[in-house]
Amino acid sequence: MTAAVTAPSATLRAEAEARLADLATPPGALGRLGDLAVWVAATQGQVPPAPIDRVRAVIFAGDHGVSDHGVSAFPKAITPAMVRTFLAGRAGVSVLAAQHGVSVRVLDLGVDDDLDGVPAEVTAFKVRRGSGAIHLEDALTSDETRRAILAGETVAAEEIAAGAQLLVSGDMGIGNTTPAAALIAASFGLPASEVTGRGTGIDEAALAAKTALVQHAVDRAGERTADPVDTLTALGSADLAASAGFMAAAARAGVPVLLDGVISVAAAVMADRLAPGAAAWFVAGHRSTEPAQSLALDKLGLEPVLDLGMRLGEGSGAVAAVPLLRSAALLLSQVALLSDLH
Amino acid sequence: MTAAVTAPSATLRAEAEARLADLATPPGALGRLGDLAVWVAATQGQVPPAPIDRVRAVIFAGDHGVSDHGVSAFPKAITPAMVRTFLAGRAGVSVLAAQHGVSVRVLDLGVDDDLDGVPAEVTAFKVRRGSGAIHLEDALTSDETRRAILAGETVAAEEIAAGAQLLVSGDMGIGNTTPAAALIAASFGLPASEVTGRGTGIDEAALAAKTALVQHAVDRAGERTADPVDTLTALGSADLAASAGFMAAAARAGVPVLLDGVISVAAAVMADRLAPGAAAWFVAGHRSTEPAQSLALDKLGLEPVLDLGMRLGEGSGAVAAVPLLRSAALLLSQVALLSDLH
Repeated sequence: MTAAVTAPSATLRAEAEARLADLATPPGALGRLGDLAVWVAATQGQVPPAPIDRVRAVIFAGDHGVSDHGVSAFPKAITPAMVRTFLAGRAGVSVLAAQHGVSVRVLDLGVDDDLDGVPAEVTAFKVRRGSGAIHLEDALTSDETRRAILAGETVAAEEIAAGAQLLVSGDMGIGNTTPAAALIAASFGLPASEVTGRGTGIDEAALAAKTALVQHAVDRAGERTADPVDTLTALGSADLAASAGFMAAAARAGVPVLLDGVISVAAAVMADRLAPGAAAWFVAGHRSTEPAQSLALDKLGLEPVLDLGMRLGEGSGAVAAVPLLRSAALLLSQVALLSDLH
Repeated sequence: MTAAVTAPSATLRAEAEARLADLATPPGALGRLGDLAVWVAATQGQVPPAPIDRVRAVIFAGDHGVSDHGVSAFPKAITPAMVRTFLAGRAGVSVLAAQHGVSVRVLDLGVDDDLDGVPAEVTAFKVRRGSGAIHLEDALTSDETRRAILAGETVAAEEIAAGAQLLVSGDMGIGNTTPAAALIAASFGLPASEVTGRGTGIDEAALAAKTALVQHAVDRAGERTADPVDTLTALGSADLAASAGFMAAAARAGVPVLLDGVISVAAAVMADRLAPGAAAWFVAGHRSTEPAQSLALDKLGLEPVLDLGMRLGEGSGAVAAVPLLRSAALLLSQVALLSDLH
């Protein structure tokens, strides 16, 4: 599970940079879109890059034992209600995905509900109902962690087989910013006070309690945080472990991943630990308001495309950034070359 | 020419805010997209807002006498070459506009070239060949300024009659960041040292000379800068005056305008002086690297949607932001309401 990942081609990157410099635009005038275009070309292994037509998002849903301990502004009954809202195409990410022609697949990895009546494929990878409250007990058993990672890897392989040129990992789960913050704190040795945020909107007192809970969880995990699978077992959840497996598998297969907010970025951090070098295949869609997200992106060397103060999750910030990644690829392939003008 | 503008409906704004609060998302979770959705609904006068299907961009092209005085990294022969590149659909903005289904119309207001062989409609509004070098002489005569403003107003009326729900004013003209900086400095009483930037990429020595030239031009204009038409006559150009007239007419007609970089924002400043209150109909597409653009946006109370270090002009930064404005409108109209979940 911890095989290193081959980086996008340096040769193709250099070719893409040469083409960028030859566009009939002033040097550097495309700003970040120029950088993104070079990265896209390198990940595709072709200059000019192909249009990014087939983008596929997978939402990994799950509940979190900590949601019974005052860390969230919403009750856990929201999680299954939102799974049904995704299936109805009425969530925020559904609307953005329909706008941009992005496919959305929702999977229940650990929702604390039987989801009666939802299609069987939604629950096909379910590992358990809810995860352990991480300040008191492990989130998962080691076996459950491995099954969740394998589920993510399997789903990535399926999405890639279906033609995905770019993948998005979305999330749904009341309380999920708590394990995400804990995974980021544990992976980078950061104190809970730096990584803990307001999630869907808790007040000052709840933030203080959430911060203490995150620190307690990380302290409880102790030396096991040196190993990525053990870290997910102690501090993660089935949905986070599956998302990490999904991203690690994408990187190993050479398919780029567009990251969303703190849940997606926490999973990316774990993917880069499971498959060292995986982060070279990731691009940050947006900057969320969660402090752990910005800190982790810095550590991964990623700069977000959008900074709109979004904190919806679901993959929404990533999907909102899809047209800009597409713009980057199109500009590098379709703008006139200087040599055409002479 | 200086009739005040009616603001977007406060009643509709309040209705839109109420609907935003009722979406099945945590309060504030859509960030700027929520704010933009409310603004779009208020400008449209309907809640939920309609999809923004018909976006139309007009590129006002012109040359600038200052381009013979060391302010630009490129020679003015680039201006007509780029007009032909727009017509061929091979410029940066062309690629982005094709991606997003935005119509692009290019108009020669003051290119210092006869543009032999281009379609007659491109030069139908031509005011003159090039503008005066503003540190030495007026850019235009008063009559030329009025003709250019009227051209912009006429074009706006045509685009609105063609169904535009949102307008973009793009630019092309070597040397055009110099009059843009001068217009912003003169309008807000700012020193040239704060507004002058590197444009398409000049070095330190050229930047110092450009800064001195801008200051010299503003000083030469003197008290005439108290009047917006006189300001355009002294420091503008035919393309900038037309763009200002275009935006003022859009605001008077209640059609929103998505702003681009420093040229577009300088024209927006002049539009808001020609038609006080017009800025309430403007939204900032992106933050350019030109200092005058950020300063002027601050003064207009506008915060850019994108911040990607772009400095291409042409309307490109505005067109790149179109999908996000569309996302905002779609989210407010299509996301499930809390009342639907119960």
